Amino acid sequence: MEASEKPVLYTYFRSSCSWRVRIALALKGIAYDQTPVNLVKDGGQQLSSEFQAMNPMQQVPVLKIDGVTLLQSLAIIEYLEETRPNPRILPLDPKKRAQVRMISNHIASGIQPLQNLSVLQQMGEKKLDWAQHCISHGFKALEQILQDTAGRYCVGNEVTMADLCLVPQVYNAERFKVDLTPYPTISRINKALLELEAFQTSHPSRQPDTPPEFKA
Amino acid sequence: MEASEKPVLYTYFRSSCSWRVRIALALKGIAYDQTPVNLVKDGGQQLSSEFQAMNPMQQVPVLKIDGVTLLQSLAIIEYLEETRPNPRILPLDPKKRAQVRMISNHIASGIQPLQNLSVLQQMGEKKLDWAQHCISHGFKALEQILQDTAGRYCVGNEVTMADLCLVPQVYNAERFKVDLTPYPTISRINKALLELEAFQTSHPSRQPDTPPEFKA
Repeated sequence: MEASEKPVLYTYFRSSCSWRVRIALALKGIAYDQTPVNLVKDGGQQLSSEFQAMNPMQQVPVLKIDGVTLLQSLAIIEYLEETRPNPRILPLDPKKRAQVRMISNHIASGIQPLQNLSVLQQMGEKKLDWAQHCISHGFKALEQILQDTAGRYCVGNEVTMADLCLVPQVYNAERFKVDLTPYPTISRINKALLELEAFQTSHPSRQPDTPPEFKA
Repeated sequence: MEASEKPVLYTYFRSSCSWRVRIALALKGIAYDQTPVNLVKDGGQQLSSEFQAMNPMQQVPVLKIDGVTLLQSLAIIEYLEETRPNPRILPLDPKKRAQVRMISNHIASGIQPLQNLSVLQQMGEKKLDWAQHCISHGFKALEQILQDTAGRYCVGNEVTMADLCLVPQVYNAERFKVDLTPYPTISRINKALLELEAFQTSHPSRQPDTPPEFKA
């Protein structure tokens, strides 16, 4: 791909990691094309040899941009921030940046992987209980952390990478019917973020590959 | 804590996430004190109310530094890089930085959480099989990725954050008796890194809280 070509995002409408990147692209006003990768159809299109050659991790999202192929949602978002810093989604102050990354990693390493498909498939009948347990346990910690960091959003009053992780994780929590009553700060921030256009246009219910039954 | 005080790392000798941070501190020549948190003794000291008040996630590592309390190993390492950039463990080129973060996140989100204690406890008799499966699956992808990125180390010829994630993950693989023969690049890089002093002094076998039977 030539560096001047439009970026291409390999994505799945309901993948929470893909959604994080879609929000970043929307916030920064970066035009891109989508190539849907259906994680369930044909036994999972991410397992095809063509896709595997591009991403050995067999996961979405993948972003082709500036002549390179980028994997891992947080690495992609940090790259976008470093190459397209307006508007910023990481604060300038190192201590605030650490708070943003702490929350982002708490979700991306501490919650999401534990309720991902590969783990749930091992859990058999305990599947729903396990997903609820992992998310609730992670949200309990997050609710406490947000008491120190939050303003209108996760860290202060500007949208940051932490918010890009929060909203898709709350969406997953709702899919797994987690009771959100004990997490009023998470719920408040999620609601405020969903009022923003970048979170709306990137929503799983509004993607080119969203099936009719999931359309908004 | 005053900003001028010596940093304190809450750590456990065998925690792979703690080891990542110990390597960063050693590489950058940052003097610090250790407070051991025994993850198995007394049912897990990380579950105490004192520790939980400091880290709601009930995990190590925690780093108290510059008057703040930092959680999550990669967020801590990025903070150290931003505030103590010599020697660098992230390249200057954004595309290379993305490669470093891609590998770091692949390990920190895609491998380590799946073979962590909380998941293994759910797996009953399948525990060892599951840990081996997760690590092998992740290493297969990583071996392929390293064909594009590696020089002497994970990304080029300088030590980066990716290397700080690699060595502790290989240590975990060995604990779980994963056959490393199919991953010659991972094995080669791991061996080269273990020759460096920062990886040796931070090793689980040489910590203040290492029990006699695990001492080097």
